[in-house]
Amino acid sequence: MRKAIEEAKLAESMGEVPVGAVIICDNQIIARAHNLTEHLSDITAHAEILAITAASEFLGSKYLTDCTLYVSLEPCPMCAGALAWSQIGRVVYGAGDDKRGFMRFGKELLHPKTELAFGLFHDECADLMKNFFKARR
Amino acid sequence: MRKAIEEAKLAESMGEVPVGAVIICDNQIIARAHNLTEHLSDITAHAEILAITAASEFLGSKYLTDCTLYVSLEPCPMCAGALAWSQIGRVVYGAGDDKRGFMRFGKELLHPKTELAFGLFHDECADLMKNFFKARR
Repeated sequence: MRKAIEEAKLAESMGEVPVGAVIICDNQIIARAHNLTEHLSDITAHAEILAITAASEFLGSKYLTDCTLYVSLEPCPMCAGALAWSQIGRVVYGAGDDKRGFMRFGKELLHPKTELAFGLFHDECADLMKNFFKARR
Repeated sequence: MRKAIEEAKLAESMGEVPVGAVIICDNQIIARAHNLTEHLSDITAHAEILAITAASEFLGSKYLTDCTLYVSLEPCPMCAGALAWSQIGRVVYGAGDDKRGFMRFGKELLHPKTELAFGLFHDECADLMKNFFKARR
């Protein structure tokens, strides 16, 4: 999750909403990405989507069953839906997102075999978002 | 929707699940795409996601408020979540998808301002899927 937070800080330094993601397979980082929606003018360029695409490219497989995603913020429904298609083994997010997070719709948005954990480095992840939006006000 | 069905047939000819999408703005087609998940080994490469990215690129905007998406099949939650972020004006789908469609989670997955319609060329859209999976059995 430290690496995901580093990615989030990279996003922040570019004026992007600070969300970062890392995908691990066999104890190795196979993908890292941060939010790029502003730079690409593309709402699909969330950290998770970019990381899934990079991990699939690395593995040569559509499925990420043996992988873990670490992401600094609770994924949105789009990203949860993508994670479901990828059948990813495990998702760990840092801070929750009551307004835009997928959990409003329930864990059922993920694949039934995907393990879910959250709250890792919670305060650090939550502060990233809080400070970003406070600075913009 | 005829153009979306043409796109779906293109997908089918490539061995992809036959789903096609077209985005219209000011009575002009600004994006057309079909499912490419197999060819790209990337579960995010659904017709709708590719069409949203292409439309944003065309308009130079993240938001598609004045656009309509025509898609041959009910979008999945990932695509509905992407459509929500794009704030697209209108979504029209052909056939429903009881197992994998977003409507299991409710219209709330879309943006509150997005109009929704479905059933246009229903039988033609549904037959595309039925025939594709029948041929694979």
